[in-house]
Amino acid sequence: MDFRQLVERAGAMTVAAALALSFAPANAAEQSGPKISDFKLDNGLELVVIPDHRAPVVTHMIWYKVGAADETAGKSGLAHFLEHLMFKGTAKNPAGRFSQVVAGMGGQENAFTSSDYTGYYQRVPSEKLKQVMSFEADRMTGLVLTDAVVLPERDVILEERNQRMENNPRARLGEQMDAALFLNSPYGRPVIGWRHEMEGLTKDDAIGFYRRFYGPNNAVVVVAGDIEPEQALAFAKETYGALKPHADIAPRARPQEPPPAAARSLTLADPRVEQPTLQRSYLVPSFHTAQAGESEALEVLAHILGAGSNSRLYRALVVDKHVATSAGAYYDSSAYDLSKFGVYGAPAEGVSLPQLEADIDAVIADMIDKGVSDDELERSKSRLVADAIYAQDNQAMMARWYGQALMSGATVNDVQKWPERIRAVTAAQVKDAALKWLDRKRSVTGYLVKETTPAVNKAEQAPPAKSGSTGEKRS
Amino acid sequence: MDFRQLVERAGAMTVAAALALSFAPANAAEQSGPKISDFKLDNGLELVVIPDHRAPVVTHMIWYKVGAADETAGKSGLAHFLEHLMFKGTAKNPAGRFSQVVAGMGGQENAFTSSDYTGYYQRVPSEKLKQVMSFEADRMTGLVLTDAVVLPERDVILEERNQRMENNPRARLGEQMDAALFLNSPYGRPVIGWRHEMEGLTKDDAIGFYRRFYGPNNAVVVVAGDIEPEQALAFAKETYGALKPHADIAPRARPQEPPPAAARSLTLADPRVEQPTLQRSYLVPSFHTAQAGESEALEVLAHILGAGSNSRLYRALVVDKHVATSAGAYYDSSAYDLSKFGVYGAPAEGVSLPQLEADIDAVIADMIDKGVSDDELERSKSRLVADAIYAQDNQAMMARWYGQALMSGATVNDVQKWPERIRAVTAAQVKDAALKWLDRKRSVTGYLVKETTPAVNKAEQAPPAKSGSTGEKRS
Repeated sequence: MDFRQLVERAGAMTVAAALALSFAPANAAEQSGPKISDFKLDNGLELVVIPDHRAPVVTHMIWYKVGAADETAGKSGLAHFLEHLMFKGTAKNPAGRFSQVVAGMGGQENAFTSSDYTGYYQRVPSEKLKQVMSFEADRMTGLVLTDAVVLPERDVILEERNQRMENNPRARLGEQMDAALFLNSPYGRPVIGWRHEMEGLTKDDAIGFYRRFYGPNNAVVVVAGDIEPEQALAFAKETYGALKPHADIAPRARPQEPPPAAARSLTLADPRVEQPTLQRSYLVPSFHTAQAGESEALEVLAHILGAGSNSRLYRALVVDKHVATSAGAYYDSSAYDLSKFGVYGAPAEGVSLPQLEADIDAVIADMIDKGVSDDELERSKSRLVADAIYAQDNQAMMARWYGQALMSGATVNDVQKWPERIRAVTAAQVKDAALKWLDRKRSVTGYLVKETTPAVNKAEQAPPAKSGSTGEKRS
Repeated sequence: MDFRQLVERAGAMTVAAALALSFAPANAAEQSGPKISDFKLDNGLELVVIPDHRAPVVTHMIWYKVGAADETAGKSGLAHFLEHLMFKGTAKNPAGRFSQVVAGMGGQENAFTSSDYTGYYQRVPSEKLKQVMSFEADRMTGLVLTDAVVLPERDVILEERNQRMENNPRARLGEQMDAALFLNSPYGRPVIGWRHEMEGLTKDDAIGFYRRFYGPNNAVVVVAGDIEPEQALAFAKETYGALKPHADIAPRARPQEPPPAAARSLTLADPRVEQPTLQRSYLVPSFHTAQAGESEALEVLAHILGAGSNSRLYRALVVDKHVATSAGAYYDSSAYDLSKFGVYGAPAEGVSLPQLEADIDAVIADMIDKGVSDDELERSKSRLVADAIYAQDNQAMMARWYGQALMSGATVNDVQKWPERIRAVTAAQVKDAALKWLDRKRSVTGYLVKETTPAVNKAEQAPPAKSGSTGEKRS
């Protein structure tokens, strides 16, 4: 499924897997997790160290608190464009050298951009940590760009848009739904950018954005691996510590959403669609914007409603009624501003999207009406916490969880207490969350259908954007 | 009907009437219109003089090329807020004096803000023209604001939003539809502003906006009435001419729309709705963005499809089939960026909105399929031109047409040639316009329904956001 849009530079990590649990690792509270260290250098750079001594490797990630939502209107795609351009070299390290050195170490590298952050990643032998820190510190303020490197890279991101969006009907649907869900927030803007705006991005745009947002006091370094915290701190001081703080980093303050007022729907028809699908997004709080307990209740709600083959949606629609070949729900708590709660399904042969939608709405209505059983609640909570613990086995994912959380207004402690907060969720909170947030007025429903000639596809109906339909109550 | 959002300060002029014909006056080409003079002062201020000697009065309007679409994201409502604050006085003329003087002359005044412009207006005895010019010139650069006047005025615009939007279900629908129609353009933003952003507007925001956009080289003065052009020019030079040009006026360059991809629909439920209605907006070119002849073809198309009781929609739905109590279409050519083509209807008793929508779509499909008759074409073109000529009788409306046209990227000559261009529209162009622009992918359909309890209003269905439905062809 599509979670928050995230444009990944290389394929070393599966994004869906990394995001599926939002920032969900357990640790201290579980008496099983690693002891996390959290430092701050004098220049404002934050350093998080996650010990993992199973192998002599480290994952080094630098996260900047800037993403597509921070772009100036009309310059969409700029955060991601800059991410690409960060590989174009500095006075000290010409283009390609950093990547060559990482490859020479037998390492991997990667970079990614979301609405809220931009990140760079290397997985290298532990003894190389200081060297990669030195490279990252160098390009934090020393990037050199010329039209000769910028313009061809613009073609690269345009081609990336072709591949990721234009050639992917599901991604196109997601792009249209985000634009319809967010009426005022820049989260409605695609991270990769609108093509017509990407085409106009310049070297000066990139340099201006870089100078505005890149600096030690707008960055978090996460190191996970076979390294002692004090040693990582010493390396960080020797490398990043030499940089001056950025004088003009303002707190993030993006345009906010007005209160949702109208249930929305849209249909995207594309000739390449073989399997029609239905997607729905509800505008809901993220962990950062939620009141205490609300975000956790949404996590449990999404799990009970739509995670896996034991979920309400799957059992009702795929197993019992055979109206769907897949169905589920998800929630991503990690956004600096508002977030999305998603529901989806693919109809079985002979079932129309409106029929499927009515069945989905009935499942949701039942949840709002009757709530969840104690058994469901306990099973979901245990599974959520267990999954988080198992996931700690992946060093890069651990680094990613903490980085993503810190980019979304959460703290290391918030991440560590996540299992505790999930365990505290009650059945009443889950029912309340369903009632309050699964309100059609807060939602966009998207139908992805095969584009056919007008005479033929009248049979495929469109999503009802009902206000006050089954499953809706006013909060 | 709702045309482009426009927030009017006082009620001296009916906005709908003024906008109904977009900028449509005939004149030189008709051998009946007035001779228009068009001057430019050394400081960049443009002056348009429209002679009208029937009564010893003049309409004086100053138009600034700045509107809600020029606001910084997160500061919605600022252009309109500043319009209010322009009445708060200068060092030379304390708050209230300008208005008192106009009232003392027996004059009227007014002000208005749209997405593209902000305007101020006085209708006074001809001999007072220089005096009002002097007042306007003074407040073009001399505005003095303090928190003591700004903060109470913010309450005034918030209350204005209450009255115009929150208490008006149709306006709420329009606001939601604009937000869904424009995915990237600031035209999706309400001119009055989003409440949560209006609440945060400050004196510094207003002063910053004023200093950025107000200056003689970003303004057009339109004088209509009993005055000789050379005399008006002399007055303008003596008043406005003393102002220095603004050093940093950049050409308007707002974020543009991506290609429309998905038919959208939404439902707004409001307990105060007595008469359900259907609205549809298509994203279409304005005169400024259109290729030659396209905008005029859209004018004729809108007229044949939906102007008055002889229109296709009215005859089919109200007269013949009795499924609607009203139905029509409109097009507003006057926008700097893209514009809207609107279709609307109110169902007769016992007719559902989806039924009505299917009937509307059938009328549109027929027009796309079979085009228009020569008789219809000639009747509509004659009527459009005749209406424009009759409308010249209204001095204020003439001033408004020219002002609005000049704010939308058109010239005095473009306005004067409008009847000629309308006369040149062919049946093939009208058919092509319908095929090309009345494409559901370009549209948002809005249902306005009475909000009832969830159990009851399941009967009211929602708008199908069909792609490839009746009436749609791919262009």
